[in-house]
Amino acid sequence: MSFFTYKDLEIKYIVDGNLKSNKEVIVILNGIMMSCNSWEAFKEPFSNNNTLIRYDMVDQGESSKVNYDYSQELQLEVLHELLNHLQLDKVNIVGISYGASIALQYVIKYPNKVNKIVIANGVAKTSSWLKAIGDGWNEVAATRNGLCYYNITIPYIYSPEFYIKNIQWMEDRKEFLLPIFSNHLFLDSMVRLTKSAETHDVIKGLSSIENKTLIIAGEEDFLTPVFEQVYLNENIKNSHLVVIPKCGHASMYEVPELFTSLSLGFINNDQIKII
Amino acid sequence: MSFFTYKDLEIKYIVDGNLKSNKEVIVILNGIMMSCNSWEAFKEPFSNNNTLIRYDMVDQGESSKVNYDYSQELQLEVLHELLNHLQLDKVNIVGISYGASIALQYVIKYPNKVNKIVIANGVAKTSSWLKAIGDGWNEVAATRNGLCYYNITIPYIYSPEFYIKNIQWMEDRKEFLLPIFSNHLFLDSMVRLTKSAETHDVIKGLSSIENKTLIIAGEEDFLTPVFEQVYLNENIKNSHLVVIPKCGHASMYEVPELFTSLSLGFINNDQIKII
Amino acid sequence: MSFFTYKDLEIKYIVDGNLKSNKEVIVILNGIMMSCNSWEAFKEPFSNNNTLIRYDMVDQGESSKVNYDYSQELQLEVLHELLNHLQLDKVNIVGISYGASIALQYVIKYPNKVNKIVIANGVAKTSSWLKAIGDGWNEVAATRNGLCYYNITIPYIYSPEFYIKNIQWMEDRKEFLLPIFSNHLFLDSMVRLTKSAETHDVIKGLSSIENKTLIIAGEEDFLTPVFEQVYLNENIKNSHLVVIPKCGHASMYEVPELFTSLSLGFINNDQIKII
Amino acid sequence: MSFFTYKDLEIKYIVDGNLKSNKEVIVILNGIMMSCNSWEAFKEPFSNNNTLIRYDMVDQGESSKVNYDYSQELQLEVLHELLNHLQLDKVNIVGISYGASIALQYVIKYPNKVNKIVIANGVAKTSSWLKAIGDGWNEVAATRNGLCYYNITIPYIYSPEFYIKNIQWMEDRKEFLLPIFSNHLFLDSMVRLTKSAETHDVIKGLSSIENKTLIIAGEEDFLTPVFEQVYLNENIKNSHLVVIPKCGHASMYEVPELFTSLSLGFINNDQIKII
Repeated sequence: MSFFTYKDLEIKYIVDGNLKSNKEVIVILNGIMMSCNSWEAFKEPFSNNNTLIRYDMVDQGESSKVNYDYSQELQLEVLHELLNHLQLDKVNIVGISYGASIALQYVIKYPNKVNKIVIANGVAKTSSWLKAIGDGWNEVAATRNGLCYYNITIPYIYSPEFYIKNIQWMEDRKEFLLPIFSNHLFLDSMVRLTKSAETHDVIKGLSSIENKTLIIAGEEDFLTPVFEQVYLNENIKNSHLVVIPKCGHASMYEVPELFTSLSLGFINNDQIKII
Repeated sequence: MSFFTYKDLEIKYIVDGNLKSNKEVIVILNGIMMSCNSWEAFKEPFSNNNTLIRYDMVDQGESSKVNYDYSQELQLEVLHELLNHLQLDKVNIVGISYGASIALQYVIKYPNKVNKIVIANGVAKTSSWLKAIGDGWNEVAATRNGLCYYNITIPYIYSPEFYIKNIQWMEDRKEFLLPIFSNHLFLDSMVRLTKSAETHDVIKGLSSIENKTLIIAGEEDFLTPVFEQVYLNENIKNSHLVVIPKCGHASMYEVPELFTSLSLGFINNDQIKII
Repeated sequence: MSFFTYKDLEIKYIVDGNLKSNKEVIVILNGIMMSCNSWEAFKEPFSNNNTLIRYDMVDQGESSKVNYDYSQELQLEVLHELLNHLQLDKVNIVGISYGASIALQYVIKYPNKVNKIVIANGVAKTSSWLKAIGDGWNEVAATRNGLCYYNITIPYIYSPEFYIKNIQWMEDRKEFLLPIFSNHLFLDSMVRLTKSAETHDVIKGLSSIENKTLIIAGEEDFLTPVFEQVYLNENIKNSHLVVIPKCGHASMYEVPELFTSLSLGFINNDQIKII
Repeated sequence: MSFFTYKDLEIKYIVDGNLKSNKEVIVILNGIMMSCNSWEAFKEPFSNNNTLIRYDMVDQGESSKVNYDYSQELQLEVLHELLNHLQLDKVNIVGISYGASIALQYVIKYPNKVNKIVIANGVAKTSSWLKAIGDGWNEVAATRNGLCYYNITIPYIYSPEFYIKNIQWMEDRKEFLLPIFSNHLFLDSMVRLTKSAETHDVIKGLSSIENKTLIIAGEEDFLTPVFEQVYLNENIKNSHLVVIPKCGHASMYEVPELFTSLSLGFINNDQIKII
């Protein structure tokens, strides 16, 4: 675990593997509630044949929390600085949800820094509907009621079928998360992160993306529904779309083994063209 | 508009058309937040060739609010009394969401009272996932914050595509609903209604249903997703399923004309069998 | 049963109900292999509250067979003459498959003659893929092998799930159809009908359609797949789309009761608008 | 390229990579019309980090053609002998269509010989519907009309959207395939291969499969539709399902790069479990 400094921000990051090797580097961009730690179980496969870089974005995990509003442009610059700090010329990006937005914005702004990208459960734009969902989250956060915040966010993030089947795991997770969700600092961070995503809109930039792109959609994703991912697939020229039946928004938690093999299979194999 | 009394409860109902005619009678069972008034625009087509009966369930609209918890069994008995009160031997039922649960329970308990049924956006059982969603609603209701309650319920009830396309109507609706949602009595009613649905479970009863049944599903229904309606279709022998693309949970509001023609077409036409 | 003459063609038609009544008139446009007789089981519900008109198109059933190639424009003019012959100012049209193409072309050319339209299992254009399927049909027809023709057309027309479930009915149907499919005149008619559909293309005309339109899609339609119907829905402004799970191309045979209630419900009910 | 002998059959196979290395071995099981050569473009990625084994089944490519009917059990034994011949204890299997059936049968009969399996466009059983499709193929084959055979098989194998978009490639392919499809020996082989699949039925065996299994479905697969793959997913305990939108039955040709990364990603990455 290390930290680097961007302006007055301390950013935590973890490198698994050797930066000097010639293995493909993979940078993971977290979903909004996630941190480096969320990917602990993925460390081994992702660093087996690759160099893996995880980091906590501003207002996530152990990175600096701020006391002002910002847009995702800030996260973009943090990511850019991280890559410069690590002297990385070209990386592959795996972004989920919030991280998928950052991934799309980054590859449009810095196309030469990126090789392949994997977009899981993402959108081209934060729609008025998605903004309304976020507004609800933020208003509940303002009540400082951690249980409320848990109840109006987490169930929607998982597919009903996963939730029902793994009800005991969900209960354990609730117990684990409730103290975190009851922390005012965490809630304030969540509000700022949620607000920062409101202006996400890469509709016009999609056509400029030349990178090979894999888009992963969950059939029961109720935050970034399948039609959003179909839109990305139709507008990013070198993209492929796979839909995972009975999977919700938290694809990396619901089907971690599939998420891993989809991402690594896409990044580590030279792609062939028959036509 | 009339009232009838069941035990100490005053139940509001409206009859459109002539109860003595030999037209097919249609009883509408409201969704949880609805009332007789929600169906005003449907009055004409539904009473053109039919006799239409609408009513406010316990804790809805102008019917009695209570000060105790109950199960949907209470709503069943209220419905049964209403039909007896109106001296109706046999009716057709159109139930949406909460009303779909009542419809399923009613036809299983009183099969001889019912001709055809239309089930829109319903479930066979309130799953642990759906209960968790309801818990979130109830905990937010307890904060007495009407705006919060609005924000964490309404956007999820509409499909993103409908919401985005009709953003001005949604804004107007928000303005209209906010005073209602800020009323403590309304919120308390909603909590009791939501709780009453927790024990809904007709899994074992479905196989006994012989009535011709139409099941209407919304492709983007994020409360009672398509798989729930597929389950109903697979377990109710004389049932048909139609899926409406890009439609959410509030199908009667999103596609009122289609909802009308599907319901009336199904109820008013003798069905043919080729095989 | 009656006949009327268009140029040198004798066209068979059947009217059920009274043309002078003020009931809504419904004209059914057959699929390619169909005739008036195919709709016998539908006669009662379709003429109960409506006046029903069925007819055999050129090269179908008992109407004239020709000895030259033609486009669907010929069928259009036959339909137009039929309506004039019956002195009908305004009709509703229910078209399936081949008949859906005629329906779309007709409403674009004669918008004032049509009230509502129901399009089942249709396409906006005969694609190169659909043409290739038709080429296969026609080449097999040229071998004069009726069993071959049956085997390469009929199974694909039904959904696998319907076919498997109703295997005995399918076997009986095969026995019934084999003599017909072995008739050279029938095969020649089929070849001409198939060729006449090759140039169907209303892509540019769809935006001019103002009529209220219901589009019926079968989830397992392997001739005119769901995406074709989604396209129609997205390009016809006053249209609604319903998808029938586990239903194939022959929706009128697979779910006759649903086909009936969808069509009649749509045509016979004034549509309401909430938004 | 090499041959080995099983009874009186000469079986062609190709090994890419070193059998003595400790890389995971992948055996590809062809679709019915395929041969070793069909996978030439896949050779490099599949042998980069793996040892790849391709072979022509009985009646495929350069392996022996026979003059009697057989069941897929014969292909099973040929595969088993090939693995013994190469002294392979444990392999991974990628089977598509016909090859998916062999893969399922093989893993049920010889579970200890197999590590992971990838099932693309497969079925648990040749249904009466699929048998009817095959009957049509075989009757057309009996006419010795190669163009007919091409036209009633190939278009259905590709998704309409792929076919339309790549119409020139399809035309070139037609020119390439027509001489082959006009060869009587090829047609006779196809008839025997098709017949051998008629009795495929592993419904009862699926529950015994413990191997990690990836199931790949094409949304527009009109031979082995998505519901068949959903069935496999629901009945093979350690399985994952991905659906590729707008992809047909020939997934390996329509999305070769995705097919490659899905297969290799699944086989080459240790799978993690969070729950």
